[in-house]
Amino acid sequence: MTTTIDAPAKPAMNGVNTPVLLATINAVGAQPELAQFQFRARSTWVAGTHSRITVDDFAGAGGEHRHEVPYVVAADHPAVLVGGDNGPTPVEFLLQGLAACLTAGIGNIAAVRGIKLSEVEAVVEGDIDLQGILGLNDQVRNGYSAIRARFRIRGDAPADKLAALVAQSQARSAVFDVLTNGVPVSVEVDAG
Amino acid sequence: MTTTIDAPAKPAMNGVNTPVLLATINAVGAQPELAQFQFRARSTWVAGTHSRITVDDFAGAGGEHRHEVPYVVAADHPAVLVGGDNGPTPVEFLLQGLAACLTAGIGNIAAVRGIKLSEVEAVVEGDIDLQGILGLNDQVRNGYSAIRARFRIRGDAPADKLAALVAQSQARSAVFDVLTNGVPVSVEVDAG
Repeated sequence: MTTTIDAPAKPAMNGVNTPVLLATINAVGAQPELAQFQFRARSTWVAGTHSRITVDDFAGAGGEHRHEVPYVVAADHPAVLVGGDNGPTPVEFLLQGLAACLTAGIGNIAAVRGIKLSEVEAVVEGDIDLQGILGLNDQVRNGYSAIRARFRIRGDAPADKLAALVAQSQARSAVFDVLTNGVPVSVEVDAG
Repeated sequence: MTTTIDAPAKPAMNGVNTPVLLATINAVGAQPELAQFQFRARSTWVAGTHSRITVDDFAGAGGEHRHEVPYVVAADHPAVLVGGDNGPTPVEFLLQGLAACLTAGIGNIAAVRGIKLSEVEAVVEGDIDLQGILGLNDQVRNGYSAIRARFRIRGDAPADKLAALVAQSQARSAVFDVLTNGVPVSVEVDAG
């Protein structure tokens, strides 16, 4: 019996199951409808600026899924903004998302390129002038005016190859795309 | 001794300290430099698509602040996307942020308008075609194609007044602004 192998098997690396990752990409390439995903968050107001948000179910790859456990997080405004500081400020979730997305991409891309990572750290900052949301100055936007991410990356490849991992992750980052280009958001209300 | 009160004192309502909220807005109106804030997230890669993100220090109102406790969260890709499902998927943080921001605004605005809320629930959904981030189709963007938020709101005011709270929160939401309009994001790399 002969087994044909098209290419050398890529081992798992950096904690990435590279063979499964590549097989998944090939499967989606053959059946693009598998690529349609929907993520969801469900929130409940607690009091003041304090809410509780659950991330649990999502759809994709042709079916419904649940996370291994529901992820429940509190959100609030900090004391200096007259909140109870029961959780991150809503705008901080955007920075978490950017850090997480770029970092996850770096992990995957490094594995596919055969680069062993030893360290990936990031600081993400967002500047915001609250005159916008406080209704004090109509010339000031409500959201961040700028976001900066600074990555420190170390691994068993030359600096230019490591830097290229960050660049490729940015080029394929869902969160980077949404934050830089925006997305249509609709808000519906059931009031009674 | 005479105490002059310009307007009837607004009591705390919905868990919002309305007098302090209005005093804060007045203070920032008199000193706009107090409105300059910077929020931050710090991430550490763990393995694969798994990272750990800390939200702790931030700047604003003329000084440096820390949250009452550091908020540490894990992020990961779900199993169906070849991750370890150790935390929310990065794009889910964006939905958390939108739910939290709109809900916090509703709480504040209702208090200022003297409306007592009994229930504010939301479901936020984001549609994404992963052919973009998987590099399978250059016509498909990396991020969400659409986000929908559906609010259910109940309180001691007519339906139109309750719906107006959601509309005003949307009009003054930092996260809604960033998600719909985008923001400049820079990524710097220290590779070595």
